[in-house]
Amino acid sequence: MGTALKVLKLLDSFSLQQPELGLSQIARMNQINKATALRYLTNLADYGMVEQDPQSKLYSIGTAPLRLANLREAAKPRLTAARIVMKAQVLKVHETMHMSLLKSDQLQTTLVEETQAHSVRISIGTSEILPLHATASGIVSLAFGPRNLLQHVLDGSLPTYSEHTLTNPDRLMDLVDETLHKGWCESVSGYETGVHGFAAPIFGEEQTAIGAIACVIPQPRVTSDLRSAVLDALSIASKEITSVYGGQFPANYRLNQLQTS
Amino acid sequence: MGTALKVLKLLDSFSLQQPELGLSQIARMNQINKATALRYLTNLADYGMVEQDPQSKLYSIGTAPLRLANLREAAKPRLTAARIVMKAQVLKVHETMHMSLLKSDQLQTTLVEETQAHSVRISIGTSEILPLHATASGIVSLAFGPRNLLQHVLDGSLPTYSEHTLTNPDRLMDLVDETLHKGWCESVSGYETGVHGFAAPIFGEEQTAIGAIACVIPQPRVTSDLRSAVLDALSIASKEITSVYGGQFPANYRLNQLQTS
Repeated sequence: MGTALKVLKLLDSFSLQQPELGLSQIARMNQINKATALRYLTNLADYGMVEQDPQSKLYSIGTAPLRLANLREAAKPRLTAARIVMKAQVLKVHETMHMSLLKSDQLQTTLVEETQAHSVRISIGTSEILPLHATASGIVSLAFGPRNLLQHVLDGSLPTYSEHTLTNPDRLMDLVDETLHKGWCESVSGYETGVHGFAAPIFGEEQTAIGAIACVIPQPRVTSDLRSAVLDALSIASKEITSVYGGQFPANYRLNQLQTS
Repeated sequence: MGTALKVLKLLDSFSLQQPELGLSQIARMNQINKATALRYLTNLADYGMVEQDPQSKLYSIGTAPLRLANLREAAKPRLTAARIVMKAQVLKVHETMHMSLLKSDQLQTTLVEETQAHSVRISIGTSEILPLHATASGIVSLAFGPRNLLQHVLDGSLPTYSEHTLTNPDRLMDLVDETLHKGWCESVSGYETGVHGFAAPIFGEEQTAIGAIACVIPQPRVTSDLRSAVLDALSIASKEITSVYGGQFPANYRLNQLQTS
């Protein structure tokens, strides 16, 4: 690993939990001596990647990333970048994928990338509101999204969309727990009969899901091979789109847990 | 300059005008050979600071800055950081400073940092709306802000606040031109008699002013020494707060032109 990359990796020392760090702490976290850590930090500070508080002497992320983030957003807006990620995965699994984002307590389909490989495929409109208790994307949002979302859904009614819709609050909470544990969700015919959905979370800045990336497949086509290919694709898309949104994965969310179902 | 800083400086090659660049172009812009440029870019790409389009092979800013920018914002929100910048400058010039931000076509005082050094000082409320044609902050916003703002002001009425308020559209346009050229604005008693105001722009992502940083002084205290100290302070504050907002200075705006009035 080149020096420059080692210097950049120092930035990984900072987190929401530890936004400010002292020199010794950074040296220890990166298993380097203090002189080296200081040299690296000075390089980062010279570019504005980190800054040091003149009083406390603690380091934190600087302002250069703000400028670069704005440049990035102007050049490659998030939705365009997310679409590119989805296109690549749809080409691998040959099934329709969609991305949905939470707007306050509603989950809204924002991007749809239809497969062109099958004439029988799931067609979804963008801006469609997905019921939180009846779709894989919804369950994922309940599991990883804002804390009060699940309570809000449980406080409301749980409408029936098909004979498989989960309308029992206890069973819904069980599925949310299972999803929290697995990192992804599978929903069979919960919203529409014959539609098999898989979804994984997209995380935002606060390590909270801001939405979900899903793959929807006509039931008869789901095989165990396709299932594992889809989980692979969702794992990659979840990671890359979280990155596109500048999001942070929760510490206990294992990116590869999707595959080890 | 260490290698790591040289690697980071490569990020300066990207701009709103040139968000995507090829290897040769980057090498040329940084006066290094292509092998070195490739090595540097690979380091940056490994951390996600840049990314390469698989088809066009062009490089652009990656997604790592988005994540870092969000971390920064969570740890040090913009307003807090801007206030720290202002405090440092107020301690130098011993006069009240305020920062105002444009909300659509209104300029609103957002932060006020009063000097404690004088009992006679300017007191301003936050959330006060500043008239665009009658304050130094307003003129700066007209000069460097969104294109349609000046026309909008000229289309409306130009109310009188004091006997020195500029109400003649031609004279207003002259002052805007002069401000564009100088990079800052001075307004004497335009809004309130006896108040001498100096202001410099704060730029946002699109190289357009999102607001202004100003220093307001009771008229009798303005000397040529204080004037030049204030312009120094505004120059620093303008640069640092633009950075706090992730903004970009227009290519033709010289940061130090404030001093060379």
